[in-house]
Amino acid sequence: MRDVAIIGIGVTKFGELWNRSFRDLGIEAGLKAIEDAKLSGSEIDGLFIGNMSAGRFINQQHIDALIADYSGMASKHIPATRVEAGGASGAVAFRQAVMAVASGMHDIVMVGGAEKMTDIDDPSINSVLDATADAEWEAGMGLTFASLHAMIAQRMIHEGIATREEIASFSVNSHFHGALNPNAQFKKAITLDTVLRSGPVATPLGMFDCAPISDGAASLVLCPLEDAKKYTDSYVKVSAVAQASDTLALFQREDITTYGATVSAAQAAYKTAGITAADVDVAEVHDTYTVAGIMALQDLGLFKRGEAGKAVLEGRCQVGSDMPVNTSGGLKARGHPVGATGVAQIVEIAEQLRGSADKRQVENAKYGVAQSSGGMGSAVVVSVMEAI
Amino acid sequence: MRDVAIIGIGVTKFGELWNRSFRDLGIEAGLKAIEDAKLSGSEIDGLFIGNMSAGRFINQQHIDALIADYSGMASKHIPATRVEAGGASGAVAFRQAVMAVASGMHDIVMVGGAEKMTDIDDPSINSVLDATADAEWEAGMGLTFASLHAMIAQRMIHEGIATREEIASFSVNSHFHGALNPNAQFKKAITLDTVLRSGPVATPLGMFDCAPISDGAASLVLCPLEDAKKYTDSYVKVSAVAQASDTLALFQREDITTYGATVSAAQAAYKTAGITAADVDVAEVHDTYTVAGIMALQDLGLFKRGEAGKAVLEGRCQVGSDMPVNTSGGLKARGHPVGATGVAQIVEIAEQLRGSADKRQVENAKYGVAQSSGGMGSAVVVSVMEAI
Repeated sequence: MRDVAIIGIGVTKFGELWNRSFRDLGIEAGLKAIEDAKLSGSEIDGLFIGNMSAGRFINQQHIDALIADYSGMASKHIPATRVEAGGASGAVAFRQAVMAVASGMHDIVMVGGAEKMTDIDDPSINSVLDATADAEWEAGMGLTFASLHAMIAQRMIHEGIATREEIASFSVNSHFHGALNPNAQFKKAITLDTVLRSGPVATPLGMFDCAPISDGAASLVLCPLEDAKKYTDSYVKVSAVAQASDTLALFQREDITTYGATVSAAQAAYKTAGITAADVDVAEVHDTYTVAGIMALQDLGLFKRGEAGKAVLEGRCQVGSDMPVNTSGGLKARGHPVGATGVAQIVEIAEQLRGSADKRQVENAKYGVAQSSGGMGSAVVVSVMEAI
Repeated sequence: MRDVAIIGIGVTKFGELWNRSFRDLGIEAGLKAIEDAKLSGSEIDGLFIGNMSAGRFINQQHIDALIADYSGMASKHIPATRVEAGGASGAVAFRQAVMAVASGMHDIVMVGGAEKMTDIDDPSINSVLDATADAEWEAGMGLTFASLHAMIAQRMIHEGIATREEIASFSVNSHFHGALNPNAQFKKAITLDTVLRSGPVATPLGMFDCAPISDGAASLVLCPLEDAKKYTDSYVKVSAVAQASDTLALFQREDITTYGATVSAAQAAYKTAGITAADVDVAEVHDTYTVAGIMALQDLGLFKRGEAGKAVLEGRCQVGSDMPVNTSGGLKARGHPVGATGVAQIVEIAEQLRGSADKRQVENAKYGVAQSSGGMGSAVVVSVMEAI
């Protein structure tokens, strides 16, 4: 198995981009990554795309072929593959691409993640999103993602794992970083009071506990680590990518205050990378809801159970402090175009490890971790990247 | 890169299965493959699923997690990955699984393909199917798959590549084999006259030129070739899997009587397998429409351009003759549950190479090929399997 490097990264602005199409966004991110990798598009021999619901959002399935076509790769018949795993779609596409290079089946591959969520065909965006939860036993009964996460939050508060204020502070942390990221959907720092007093969504969660609906795309170029230097001096090593599953329905778990798939994938990834959680210098986690962010910090082993919320409230996850998390602004402030998110997380980690994260730069970051979750932690990918 | 073997196969009956659910079908095929491989489900360490449109057909995305869950693998947090490439979804899942084993990232993986197309949520099945064509430039203008294929047929007749009778004979060939396959949706042999006199769909194609709407699932178990003997004596080698893309829209092709992606994938696959088209003993091709079957025979190099139709009409593609094709009954007679089809084709080739195809058995088959197409040949996978 060959080692793999990330040699190019590209990301669009995230937001409600009414005047941008799905195709348009995907191509912008792809071209940026190709330019960043200092190669020509004709050198790419494979394409992996993460997308949740183009079939419903824009009535277009088969977007693997669409992206290959519109990026000019179809004429060369380059294979293009779409994967879907709800919110983890982009991260799963990344894993497939790493596998393709590691196996030797491909040499230079592009990973793309994209979603167009505003300006859509489908009448109910929630019905599309809820289709990544258990349609038969949970979503079909009226349990939205917000209410499922609210139940987790209630349980965490009940068990004394985190207070309402600690959970809310995750949003403050994300917005703090969003204000430093020119591509973020929300570039405004907020106070704890703003989160606590925001309109109720599902008790105890309010509007500012929830990631927004967004349009956007992100892209990566990968090649064998041994070839990376031929293209660029600015690359990072992919030390591990691990994926794990859990029950689709939340009610079937023994403990809803932890995602077993995150724990399992993190352990596998750390083992492959030869590190422990203590070695992680910067992390991007899947904060669709504040409470999911807190859980991720615990499940990744970055903080002990019961201590993550306190750490976030104390500002320890801000850049400049000891465990910077979601320096991109996270899903909450950078935005959450579902299929793009998992790829955008890797882009941010690569920026940090290359030292190109500008105002959000974590000093001397050696190891970065990205955690991406589909459904209620039903599919989780944990990736470890390493500065070279 | 490790060599890969298919050690287990499973397929459900295909048809309008009103009393079977998506979950139910997926599990049946999976359990059959596990039993066939003579291992226990707990030995599987990865799962790859091909599915086109569960998000629209049954309002359930994220079916990777769903299948992992319902097959009892979620509790062990086994990674599960869903891929989508329109009609090639199952074949692309197979390719990802081969890559996973070849790279060493996984040891024993299951591939599943499933689709539930009757008894569905979405009001218009054609709108779902057409979403795998180009939504913006073709499907959105009212061009259905049937009319796109009809244009290809008109052009082939116009250019003298095949006559109407030769095109129609592909359906006779599929039904001839369907009558021998207990799992086929249509188990009745038909005459050329039946096809030619069937109700018009899009001139010149009639009802019997078109594959049906079906429910069904198929499954495979893969492992490294060197380990196959530990489990079973009944396995086949995966000699090559190649994938290629083309433009999403048909109108952008220079020549619509050939699929460049099939030609490209076939050449790559033969090269990797170290064979030529002349070595192929049995083939399964993607006959959503009769004309697509004829094209595939030419694009795979099994017959010269202009000779495939004649060969089919003369019965040369029937079992017992020199180039048996679609011995399963193909998409037309076995049925076409979209996500399952690509996997079911590999199941049939494995049956032939293992010598377990019963009344459909091709004598002394050494090399078998499966060709699977998404959209209008926008994503094509060609796989070569070899008897051991």
